[in-house]
Parts: sequence; C-alpha cells; structure tokens
Amino acid sequence: MHKKLFIPGPVEVKSDVLQKMATPMIGHRTKEASELQKRITEKMRKVFHTNEEILLSTSSGSGLMEGAIRSCTAKKAAVFSVGAFGNRWYEMAKANNVPADLYEVEWGNANTPELVDEVLSTGKYDLITITHNETSTGIMNPVEEIAKVIKKYPEVVWCLDTVSSMGGAKVEVDKLGVDICITSTQKAIGLPPGLAICTFSKKAIERAEKVENRGFYLDLLRLHKYILKKDHQYPSTPSLSHMFALDYQLDRIMEEGIENRYQRHIEMAKYVREWAKKHFELFADERYLSNTLTTIKNTKGISVADLNKKLGERGFAISNGYGKLKEKTFRIAHMADTTLEEVKELLQNIDEILGF
Amino acid sequence: MHKKLFIPGPVEVKSDVLQKMATPMIGHRTKEASELQKRITEKMRKVFHTNEEILLSTSSGSGLMEGAIRSCTAKKAAVFSVGAFGNRWYEMAKANNVPADLYEVEWGNANTPELVDEVLSTGKYDLITITHNETSTGIMNPVEEIAKVIKKYPEVVWCLDTVSSMGGAKVEVDKLGVDICITSTQKAIGLPPGLAICTFSKKAIERAEKVENRGFYLDLLRLHKYILKKDHQYPSTPSLSHMFALDYQLDRIMEEGIENRYQRHIEMAKYVREWAKKHFELFADERYLSNTLTTIKNTKGISVADLNKKLGERGFAISNGYGKLKEKTFRIAHMADTTLEEVKELLQNIDEILGF
Repeated sequence: MHKKLFIPGPVEVKSDVLQKMATPMIGHRTKEASELQKRITEKMRKVFHTNEEILLSTSSGSGLMEGAIRSCTAKKAAVFSVGAFGNRWYEMAKANNVPADLYEVEWGNANTPELVDEVLSTGKYDLITITHNETSTGIMNPVEEIAKVIKKYPEVVWCLDTVSSMGGAKVEVDKLGVDICITSTQKAIGLPPGLAICTFSKKAIERAEKVENRGFYLDLLRLHKYILKKDHQYPSTPSLSHMFALDYQLDRIMEEGIENRYQRHIEMAKYVREWAKKHFELFADERYLSNTLTTIKNTKGISVADLNKKLGERGFAISNGYGKLKEKTFRIAHMADTTLEEVKELLQNIDEILGF
Repeated sequence: MHKKLFIPGPVEVKSDVLQKMATPMIGHRTKEASELQKRITEKMRKVFHTNEEILLSTSSGSGLMEGAIRSCTAKKAAVFSVGAFGNRWYEMAKANNVPADLYEVEWGNANTPELVDEVLSTGKYDLITITHNETSTGIMNPVEEIAKVIKKYPEVVWCLDTVSSMGGAKVEVDKLGVDICITSTQKAIGLPPGLAICTFSKKAIERAEKVENRGFYLDLLRLHKYILKKDHQYPSTPSLSHMFALDYQLDRIMEEGIENRYQRHIEMAKYVREWAKKHFELFADERYLSNTLTTIKNTKGISVADLNKKLGERGFAISNGYGKLKEKTFRIAHMADTTLEEVKELLQNIDEILGF
C-alpha cells in the first residue's frame, strides 16, 4: 500500500506531475532543451522573487550548498546553524579546506540578527550561510530581520538554504539581498528528489571569479558561464525527466497563485501547531516556527516508531525526530501540494491511534 | 513529433521503463528504500561483472569521474585521453588541484598498452584514468590488453569511464582489475539521465582513506561509509525515480540476457559500420571501434545539420560531430534497447534523404 507522505521530503507528488517524469527523452543539445530550461528559469524567478540567473544542478540540494560555499568563499565563511543542515554547511567547508567558523545555537532556537551583526562586524568573513528552514528542528529563521543586518556588510556574499521552504514560504531573494538561494525539487515545490536549483547574483559571480580551486561538477561559475554561452544548456547531461516535471509543476504553482500557496502552508502549519500544543509541546521557539513542517516534543513519551508503524498500516507516514532528537521529537511535514483536509485526516488518524 | 534518438545519450527509453519514472514517492529513510538499493546493487554487480561495492550518485557521470580522481589520487594521476571525455578527467583534476599529467592521442586513435606501460613505469603515478568508450570519436579502447599492463603496477588505482558502454559491451571489472568503474543511466543501460553508478574496490577504499580534501557530495569514501552504516541508504536524498526505473530496467536486461545484449550491440555496430564504409569512411582506427556508437567521417561534405533536420521531420535524431569534429563527422548511436531493425530503418531514411 502506498503511504501518503507527511515527511519533510520526499513529499507526496501529485499523479499528473509524476506522469511528467515519464516524458520521452529529447537530446540535451537541442533547441527544445534550451527552451525547456529557459521556461523553467522564467518561472523559477517568480518563485524565488528574483531577476538574477537561475542555475539547475543534477544533484541533491547538498550538491549546490557545497558548490556555493566552495565557489564563493575567498576569505572565510561564517556558518550559522540552527540544526543538522546548518552543520552540514560547515562539514562541507571543512571537507574542501574552505576556511569557516561555525556559529551553532542550541537546537530549537533561531539565529538572531544581533548575533549575525556581532559576527560580521569582526570583518573576518566574506561569506555567510543561513538555513532558512531547518527540518531537524522546525525552525524558520527570521530572514527579513537578518537581511537588514547583512546589508550593512556589502562585501559579504549571502548563501541561503531554502531547500525545505522555497515554494511554501515567501522568500524574496532580491529584496532580501540573498546572493545564492538554494532549493531542491523534493520539498515544498512538490516534485521527486534529484534536481537542485539556485539563484546566482552578480556579486556572487564576481566573487567566484576571484576564487581558485572551485572544483568542476559543482562549480557554480562554470555552470553559469556555460549556460550563457550555450543558450541555457548544461555542461553535463541534466536530469531531463525532472525538468519536464518541474516545467509542468511550476505552471500548477502559478495557477494556484504563489501567494495562495503561501497562505495554504500557513493554514496547515497553524492547524498542526494547535493540535501539537493540545496534546504535546512544540519543540521550536514559538516566535520562529516553520510553515512547512512542525517538530513536536514527545512529552507523552509515546513510541514514535510504533505510531509510525500503525500510521503506515493506515496509509500515512510521518517522520521520527532527526538524529539525536529521535523518539524525543517527531515531525509532521505540511508542504508542497498537501491540503488542509489531508492534514486533518492525518491528525484524526493519529488521534485514533493514540486514543486522544 | 517525438524523435527516435540515435544520439550517444540520452538514448531512447522504452515506454514501460519511462513509466517507472512516475512511481509514487517513498521515504528515503525506510526499509523499502534500503531494499530498493540492495536490489539495484545485486543486479548492477552482474552488469559490471564484479563482487565489489556499488555506489549510486545523483549526478551525471561527470560527478563520479570527479569524485574518483579527487578521492583516490594521493601522488599523481596519469590521465589517458582519446577524446573530449578523456580530456574532461584532466580538467577535473586541475579544477581540484589534483596533480595529474595528460596523455592524449590524436583523436580517432586508441590508447595502447605500450604507452600505458611506458608512462606507469616512471613510478610517478598512483592513479590512472582510461576512457573505455569515447563518444566524441567512436573509439573503444583495448581494456583487456591495457589491464595486463596495469596489473604490473599494484600501487596504481585504475579508474575506468564506461559511461557510454556499460550494459552494451562486456567489461569484466573484477577480472580486469578495475578499481572504480563508472557509468551513467542514460547510455547503454537505457534510462533517462540523472543517476551515475560506480564500483569501488578495496584498493580504492584504502587509497581514499589516505587522501585528504576529498570534498563532500562527490566523496566516494563518504558515500561508501554511509551506505555500510545505514543499510544502503544515502547521505543525501537520492533520485528515487531513477532508482525505481533502474531496478525495473535491470530486470529487463537480465531477461534479455546480458550476453545476448552484448551480441545485439555488436550486430548493430557491424551493420552501421558496413553502411558507413559503403558511403563514407569510419573516423576511428578500425582495430578499436566502439560497439555502442559509430563516428563517420563526412567524406562527401554533406551538411550534417541539414541531414539531421530532414531526419527530424521523419521522426529520427542522430548527432553531429563533437566539438572540433562538427560537420567533419557525424555520429550514430546504436545502444541500449535499440534493435537492428530500428537501425536499418534509420539508415534507410538517411539513404532516401541523401539519395543513395
């Protein structure tokens, strides 16, 4: 039996969107391929709220995160972390001998503009990474406030991980001044995993031009130069299947209306939070809750594994806590094309299983 | 109109295989995902003729090529090239500050065991890269003879690019002593692009353990350690759609019989070569012709672009020459699930267009 996914990626994909993954192949060096990539670029610009260049990478979001920190750190990177995926930026920097310092808060908390200001004011850093939405803890960082601080430091390239939020929460890339905003298909955008997408600002391009040892496959500057020269075609064969499906899904997103989509996510999030507070507690600081997933503190000491097993028998899947938070928390994702009705149905099933 | 692809990747994918790309999503941290990856491993071992570990990478073949040369060169890499994709290994080494020397032959020729012996006998190298099948020139290197030479140098890790041959030509990884044999889904295996696959020998593992600065997303050792620890699951969300389709396609390949599959490729290759010699000339050294594609010298000075345009109107696509060989050559791929009958149909259409 298929389990309807309420996990923070891969998400449930609508059947007509899945069907586009089965589109027959075309040559990746054809006009048709160029047109496909240009259509995606135009539509992704609306999702990112940007006029900057869009890069596609046949990799997970991690591939682009590594490419960004490696391609654009000339001096030193300040890595801000609110959980597992923030820490991953730091591991990536270390694995590439990119100078970096890690600023990690206690899990469940957000990054404050004050700390960002304090760190950047040292003048030691020329790149900063922030996780917009942290799937391990359910924190959504206050990027509007952080943006105001970062703008005080024009030499700093800002990399923002919106892997689990873009398409589900409003992030206005150009207005915020984000230089490299990274996302991935398998979260709030609502596609299968296998393709990552980012913006690439002029400041980021200029920085990358000064950085040596950027690698090859994940070198953002190399990708950018190639698509400019080759009418939006890519140096290696891209995942055309994902591109067919993305092209189609972006039309669906525009049809729903991007603002309506954000609103739907807010409503689902509110409903799950109310439910969680009624029966458990929220794990994350209530001022900075994610709109795309909720991490719930297991205050009743239930067996999350057992709950998920029973949910599985009813055709649903949620997520246990991430890493060290396993069984101490559990996570319900409410993103992509999931509706409030589906969320209600899931919670009703949990209620029945747990006897609420 | 859909054009039937006779280009060296992406190849024509059978509709039932394409349909598997539309399989509904599952969690990538589930038992189901582990089982899927283990089934693929078992079957890919038969395709590679190996008992070593199999690694999947959500990237193009280039991603794994970079990962291999970066993860496993401790001293210096000897990069042998017979065309564009051989040269790419060298660019990758340079882009990562990996010490490497390039040994490139004039395009259309093969790498000889004699040159490999001469180069390795200097004792300067601890890694060698060879392109098994070069899609820019149509050369298939004599890897059996080269293997005999490489065996004389037990400290050398052998990386072999079989991106455009694996599944269509016999390459016995363990018997040859290849340490990292790399392929990709969109060529002779017969799937859409978006997933790369390689073998990873104990010697390669031991070498990678001595290499620092291996990066993150493409670090083969990191992938390997993770799948051992996590029951064949991957550190980042993999392209599950490709894995569903690969699992299915490998059953189809086993059903055809791997030896029958090689034989079918040989027969298609022979037919195209005969046709090419009748009307044009072969570009590559006739002793080392590829079984999966044929590069034809444009001795009649036809407009290849025009031929392809007219073929397109009839529902077929072939490839122009690669890079500097554009219009000077053209390429017909005969790989994956293409049949001899389909090859004959294509050539008959070319005959009609060119008035042969």
